[in-house]
Amino acid sequence: MSKPSTQVIAIGNAIVDVMAPCEDGLIERLGLVRGGMTLVDTARAHELYDAMGPAREISGGSAANTLAGLAALGSKCAFIGQVADDQLGEVFAHDIRAGGIAFDTPARAGDPPTARCLIFVTPDGQRTMNTYLGASQFLPPAALDEAAIADAEILYLEGYLWDPEEPRAAMRRAIAAARNNGRKVAFTLSDAFVIERHGDDFRAMIAAGEIDILFANHVELASLTGHDDFHAGIDVLKDKVPMLVVTRSEQGAVAATGGQLFEVPAEPVERVVDTTGAGDLFAAGFLHALVSDRPVAECLRIGAICAAEVISHFGARPEANLRELVSARLG
Amino acid sequence: MSKPSTQVIAIGNAIVDVMAPCEDGLIERLGLVRGGMTLVDTARAHELYDAMGPAREISGGSAANTLAGLAALGSKCAFIGQVADDQLGEVFAHDIRAGGIAFDTPARAGDPPTARCLIFVTPDGQRTMNTYLGASQFLPPAALDEAAIADAEILYLEGYLWDPEEPRAAMRRAIAAARNNGRKVAFTLSDAFVIERHGDDFRAMIAAGEIDILFANHVELASLTGHDDFHAGIDVLKDKVPMLVVTRSEQGAVAATGGQLFEVPAEPVERVVDTTGAGDLFAAGFLHALVSDRPVAECLRIGAICAAEVISHFGARPEANLRELVSARLG
Repeated sequence: MSKPSTQVIAIGNAIVDVMAPCEDGLIERLGLVRGGMTLVDTARAHELYDAMGPAREISGGSAANTLAGLAALGSKCAFIGQVADDQLGEVFAHDIRAGGIAFDTPARAGDPPTARCLIFVTPDGQRTMNTYLGASQFLPPAALDEAAIADAEILYLEGYLWDPEEPRAAMRRAIAAARNNGRKVAFTLSDAFVIERHGDDFRAMIAAGEIDILFANHVELASLTGHDDFHAGIDVLKDKVPMLVVTRSEQGAVAATGGQLFEVPAEPVERVVDTTGAGDLFAAGFLHALVSDRPVAECLRIGAICAAEVISHFGARPEANLRELVSARLG
Repeated sequence: MSKPSTQVIAIGNAIVDVMAPCEDGLIERLGLVRGGMTLVDTARAHELYDAMGPAREISGGSAANTLAGLAALGSKCAFIGQVADDQLGEVFAHDIRAGGIAFDTPARAGDPPTARCLIFVTPDGQRTMNTYLGASQFLPPAALDEAAIADAEILYLEGYLWDPEEPRAAMRRAIAAARNNGRKVAFTLSDAFVIERHGDDFRAMIAAGEIDILFANHVELASLTGHDDFHAGIDVLKDKVPMLVVTRSEQGAVAATGGQLFEVPAEPVERVVDTTGAGDLFAAGFLHALVSDRPVAECLRIGAICAAEVISHFGARPEANLRELVSARLG
């Protein structure tokens, strides 16, 4: 097994976020699930967009956000995801490549258009996401670059993309390619709705030892394990995945590995502007530190610093110079 | 002459801004005119976009930004401008309508695509703009809604749009429609390059008494009058337009009207993040106060408050609640 030339290769949704501040009342009037992620069809996407205030477009997608953070920290990364051959697809491709991330999945011709996520941000900084998956759900297994997967230290998979059929098949093939080449597989559970639909798949993969690093938040942990108690949930999984990482919003984060439990408090933030991407950037900081062979406690801390940066402004991609920020905070 | 039901109707470029922070060195390496606005063709737009870092898309266009400010302040507004029938056209149309502005110009089918402006923002907050005009320059005179123009207190025209032929013809027709209905014509000079090409047109329109309210910055004033000295420039124009408004960046702004000169200092800003839209939002505040029959000194002050808001964040559309901000600042 040769030394990998890429640190992290990820498969995820290729989404442009359409974000606007909104009053609390609008969330209720539109019947949205506050703080959640809901898949929407074309008609509902139009209805929600019509109700949305003046917005801005910023590239998003959970795993793509994580790579943006990793690349900003200095990790070499590659992304696999499906855009359409349209203007938003160009925007997504530009932004990810401009971040220094390799992205070679060919754009898909014709309908549907590139995915977008309509994000309503309430005055408390909470984001309510409504995702129109468009082209993103048609990532074909044939688009996988297995040589690139074999050449990456970690394969990072976004749980959101487990839902549609074609990308799920692609991800199963990617897992096999990574494992056959002795690479690690990291998986983020993404959202409780994904676990409701595919929890059996995830539990089976975990039981089979196919997941080396598992990211979840406390809600997803409860959903996957059936334990509302945080530590009971940790206990169920801690011996089944080599590295279990669970974020708990303002309560910080926990990692369980090698029979030990590590904790970090949330990094202080002057003002929470928009929580979009908090988990994604936590994963970025954690993984960057991990591939840099830092101790686990420091992986957690760097994850927390990156999460704090991204919730201090609009948009799920980092704005500050993350390398400088992490150096300054770690002291 | 009936009472107008709209305060301001504007004709301008329908542009989506593509904005990214950049280091000072990139401006030189790309051969850009720092702080200026340059028109670019398709090839140059691609070259610049390829060199740009991860960006965000926010609706822009000078007159459209002004209307966004006016509408946020409570003025009833309408916009005339040309988008293409594409995703960025949808973004532009959504954002302007979501701001409460009437916008009925039909999208144009086929090439070229909707206009975009590639904006590089240096660490000092200065913006360097590169505009690909696309569909925007093909606004046909037939797209004018003369009844709507007749029904608006002020017709506001963006100098940038004087450059391409079709919109220039449309704007001449619009001026005639406004004047025939006893409405006022406001004109913003936009940029020195426009004056270099069309200064004779502007001087002739001023001499003919076709412009009631003229907006310029100090560079445009010098270009139009041939006087580098600010007050000498004011003296040339002050008796030729009923209301002359000149902004001077951090030196504040001046209005000359009825034989009197009014001045206001720049509103203090904690940190200048991005100067894009400063002049546009100054005009918004000034015009809103003017149509609300406020004294001239207050029109200037409200213009300065709105300009200060827009340069304190990324993007040329207001983010704060301008009505509350103006009330709070005016005390």
